[in-house]
Amino acid sequence: MRRFLIIGHKAPTAGEFSLNDLPGSAGRLDVLCRSVNSCFFLSHEFRRDVECFLLLLGEPNPPKTIMISGEEVRYLNPDERSAGSLIKKALSIPCGDKFTESTKGIYVRKGGLKELLDEYEFVVLDENGTDIRDITDMPDNYILSDHMNFTEDEESLIKDLPKISAGPKVLHADHTIITILNESDRRE
Amino acid sequence: MRRFLIIGHKAPTAGEFSLNDLPGSAGRLDVLCRSVNSCFFLSHEFRRDVECFLLLLGEPNPPKTIMISGEEVRYLNPDERSAGSLIKKALSIPCGDKFTESTKGIYVRKGGLKELLDEYEFVVLDENGTDIRDITDMPDNYILSDHMNFTEDEESLIKDLPKISAGPKVLHADHTIITILNESDRRE
Repeated sequence: MRRFLIIGHKAPTAGEFSLNDLPGSAGRLDVLCRSVNSCFFLSHEFRRDVECFLLLLGEPNPPKTIMISGEEVRYLNPDERSAGSLIKKALSIPCGDKFTESTKGIYVRKGGLKELLDEYEFVVLDENGTDIRDITDMPDNYILSDHMNFTEDEESLIKDLPKISAGPKVLHADHTIITILNESDRRE
Repeated sequence: MRRFLIIGHKAPTAGEFSLNDLPGSAGRLDVLCRSVNSCFFLSHEFRRDVECFLLLLGEPNPPKTIMISGEEVRYLNPDERSAGSLIKKALSIPCGDKFTESTKGIYVRKGGLKELLDEYEFVVLDENGTDIRDITDMPDNYILSDHMNFTEDEESLIKDLPKISAGPKVLHADHTIITILNESDRRE
């Protein structure tokens, strides 16, 4: 199982945003939608052995966490609007501290980074980290940020985690996931 | 300079499509929009040394070719709608056999694969090709298909070109471009 956690620093935490303006009024939700695509889609196949966590930190009810299970998810297409639409549904239902299923294979709960760090051992994708190609054993779980840097509070929570880089240039989160999964595919 | 040519077998050749339905009535234009993103975007940087060619083969006026120059292009954001909007503008202007600029750095002409093969030496991204990591000299110019296989006519035009693979699993066009550019970055 591979897990990717992408932090959306301005991503909305209620379902009222417009699918026609994911980069603007929906707080760069386009980055998270493309990251969902990167986690799961192969040509005529689907990565059932991946879980994608979206940490949403925008208004009005932060933090919320959405979990998409590659094993279970249905109704997900590769385009941004498709992921956006399923995220919108997840943010429209009441939720508490435990994951509640919004549509098949998509779950939402209140809570943020601290809870996830208690549950899984992550590495951090970081431009100054060790090149993924030089890592002997591929890590299972990866943390990425959206278009913004990690905040000071996030940095203090993740400062002792191993840092991994996807290559010599700093990539968007969705492109980084592609690079990590390509390396993973080659080692299977 | 790296060049990526992506063939959109059902992609529209007039500007009347809806940006709200890129995967449906716009003939999987979402694949091409994400491929444009893959060609150019780095985190807080832009790949000025890439050119992206979109070959559009859908109704009503096929074939048309759109060329996006990384050196010159402006007004392009990472989301699908942004690329879709610029493609829509390019398909809304009259064009002939020579490239006409529609918006800054984006050009459109009548014509298809044959013309491009006369102009550049391409390799074909193909699941049965040689692994890109095993290629001594990175090729400059790459042909990819959208969600459909190459047609018989296309196959006959490209059958003698070198075949390159991006790894052990068959990837979407936009993901393949990421993998190729990551390898290219590592050799710079």
